[in-house]
Amino acid sequence: MVGGGFGGIHAVSELRRSDCDVMVIDRKNHHVFQPLLYQVATAALAPSDIASPIRAVFSRQENVQTVLGEVTAANLEERTLTIGSDVVEYDLLVLAAGVTHTYFGNDAWAPRAPGLKTIDDALEIRRRVLLAFERAEFEPDAERRARLLTFVVVGGGPTGVEMAGALREIAARTIPQDFRRVDTTSSRIILVEGADRLLPGMSETASTAAKSALERMGIDVYLKTFVTRMDAHAVYAGDQRIPAENVIWAAGVRAVDLADSLGVEQDRQGRIVVGPDCAIPGYPDVFVVGDLAVQTSANDGTEVPGVAQGAIQMGAFVGEILARELRRDAPTSHERRPAFSYRDKGAMATIGRARAVADVAGASFAGFFAWLLWSFVHVAFLIGFRNKVLVMINWTWQWLIHARGSRLITGALGSHVGGVDARLDAHDSMHVHQFED
Amino acid sequence: MVGGGFGGIHAVSELRRSDCDVMVIDRKNHHVFQPLLYQVATAALAPSDIASPIRAVFSRQENVQTVLGEVTAANLEERTLTIGSDVVEYDLLVLAAGVTHTYFGNDAWAPRAPGLKTIDDALEIRRRVLLAFERAEFEPDAERRARLLTFVVVGGGPTGVEMAGALREIAARTIPQDFRRVDTTSSRIILVEGADRLLPGMSETASTAAKSALERMGIDVYLKTFVTRMDAHAVYAGDQRIPAENVIWAAGVRAVDLADSLGVEQDRQGRIVVGPDCAIPGYPDVFVVGDLAVQTSANDGTEVPGVAQGAIQMGAFVGEILARELRRDAPTSHERRPAFSYRDKGAMATIGRARAVADVAGASFAGFFAWLLWSFVHVAFLIGFRNKVLVMINWTWQWLIHARGSRLITGALGSHVGGVDARLDAHDSMHVHQFED
Repeated sequence: MVGGGFGGIHAVSELRRSDCDVMVIDRKNHHVFQPLLYQVATAALAPSDIASPIRAVFSRQENVQTVLGEVTAANLEERTLTIGSDVVEYDLLVLAAGVTHTYFGNDAWAPRAPGLKTIDDALEIRRRVLLAFERAEFEPDAERRARLLTFVVVGGGPTGVEMAGALREIAARTIPQDFRRVDTTSSRIILVEGADRLLPGMSETASTAAKSALERMGIDVYLKTFVTRMDAHAVYAGDQRIPAENVIWAAGVRAVDLADSLGVEQDRQGRIVVGPDCAIPGYPDVFVVGDLAVQTSANDGTEVPGVAQGAIQMGAFVGEILARELRRDAPTSHERRPAFSYRDKGAMATIGRARAVADVAGASFAGFFAWLLWSFVHVAFLIGFRNKVLVMINWTWQWLIHARGSRLITGALGSHVGGVDARLDAHDSMHVHQFED
Repeated sequence: MVGGGFGGIHAVSELRRSDCDVMVIDRKNHHVFQPLLYQVATAALAPSDIASPIRAVFSRQENVQTVLGEVTAANLEERTLTIGSDVVEYDLLVLAAGVTHTYFGNDAWAPRAPGLKTIDDALEIRRRVLLAFERAEFEPDAERRARLLTFVVVGGGPTGVEMAGALREIAARTIPQDFRRVDTTSSRIILVEGADRLLPGMSETASTAAKSALERMGIDVYLKTFVTRMDAHAVYAGDQRIPAENVIWAAGVRAVDLADSLGVEQDRQGRIVVGPDCAIPGYPDVFVVGDLAVQTSANDGTEVPGVAQGAIQMGAFVGEILARELRRDAPTSHERRPAFSYRDKGAMATIGRARAVADVAGASFAGFFAWLLWSFVHVAFLIGFRNKVLVMINWTWQWLIHARGSRLITGALGSHVGGVDARLDAHDSMHVHQFED
């Protein structure tokens, strides 16, 4: 089992009564509840609220061994995995290593526009966002100040929409009182999406509702617009130059590098094409689940979306196949297996405070009720009772008084943003000599 | 106001009705509740549970401006502070920048034996401790495995005692079920103290109770022992070589570098000697409070201890002086001011689960009641109602099921400990070829 995300965890759980040894390998020691990662990035939740150590998740499943390490390659002919400098043999393999963000060939943008896939990513974004306001407070130059207060979110999927809404919430409601000089409510949040609508994975109704809700909050939404260039102080969206210090990358995903080592069919994003049984055609002992798999649902012929539900359902599906075959000591073969059908349980995205859009059971709705549903579903799916309680408390708190509890800047100051200068105006009791521009 | 710790925050609060501009400068954006920092290091609490953004603390005190930056020098003659590349003038100065840990001239030990003064320090220790267990799980060599499971805590003050107790709790109760091969209950925790008793700042009774409680938990306590040397795989305590991968430094403090720039009287640890009014003799406009000050209490002639209560009381004392002098527009002079008296409200230290030692009001006691008192006092002094609630929930949870909610390893793998290798034994369904020693 490579990957301790939704797919990996649900596949392993199905094997709890099987007579086998399961090795769960992940490059992090924790499972992350990805849908709430943007809340860590925007200081609403602490990392440990949405993450659980994989070892603790499988504490009671005796046949599971957790390995902290990165699988860099798999050799399907020799049935081996490369983990660091070690090579491990397997009998059955489930790849659930997911995707990472891609800059469409512009890897030079990475330091300028961090993506959001891991807890470390989220903490880096949180650090940058909070530092931007700190720097703006003491920036005497109006143009530079405006640039520090401009946040460009690239990508209009759920992560982009939720990030943009949360940033606006911070700037307009959470922190204005904390700053003395800068008016943080003047911050500009710009959401850039290449497609002709936001949330392309949801209904047209939801897309329209999301766009107008964001615009009412004061967020600029640019559709059919691609980021073409970035330099130190600006982002180019189409032909337009947007002076902005802060860019957050929520566009484009690509399979982890491991996928390229297999020598099997991949799609344009490097994801692995699997058969109806979620196994790689010709390799009935190698399954791929979650974001890393290109899977066509058997019921309606559409592609299974790269969302938590897709990973959970594929993981459980593969876990059941394995449990059955192990029980009967059946030969592994594509033919005897059922075909995977995706059950669309709906999609939703939250937009700022107490508002969301949801597509559930054929209906599409927006507003407070959608947000309540969103909250309920997300808390229900969190792993661990403790995390559920803590997230609910944090949210209630935030909802009541607009505070965000995790506004800590950790890590060295200025290691990425170029230092925080205490530039101060001449003032009654304190005067500053500026030795730099 | 340099420093947003206990001293700084309490001094500033006293100025809330004064007609002045207060600048609070700290190199972190958050106030940390230091007495609970070891709980972040041992994965019991999340960083944001014990920290509050300084800006948020003074959100409603309009005369306060918060500056994120490090004061590297102060010129008392010219009345200026150096912050990064800027120079700021002041009329009145309060230094509350605290102390940092010192290796008594052995600075080469720093990467091997991290100290515990900031949230970043705590996260680094947490990362190392959790990684040590992960590595031990896959270490086939018994000697190396024992070394990975040996934790040496240097320093028998409150931090050292509490760290040692918490490490034993983790190894013996929290994680044994999560590991399949290694027996984490076999971990060795060694507490090394140079003095002839633990908790030198507390009563003899408390010292004795703490030592026997730790020993009953299975911790080795070495008194009158100094660390003389460290190499990559061992710590030398006196003449004894202790093979150990993990060392935590809770000994020795030294004033921050800023103190050396003043050109005034300092003690051996670099702390600044102040007069009865907490101002530097000859500089009635420069106060020093908290750990950074060497202050003799006016009531009993003893030195004010470097604990939270000392900082809080000195901070409030100086804040009151400033408020009074600003109100009357009185000249700043040592003579007209009261002398600082420290009110010893008692001291306590927790030892493992539901046990503590306490010296309060002349009495000394140990056990469950002391722990209840410890818990109550610590929660009461946390800043912010939200933090209080979250800490109480985390503690209740932990007390009930021995779980620790914040067992996340963040940051790059192996950047300090030399990589995590998935060394696996030959096994039913998986076999490993080892390509390295």
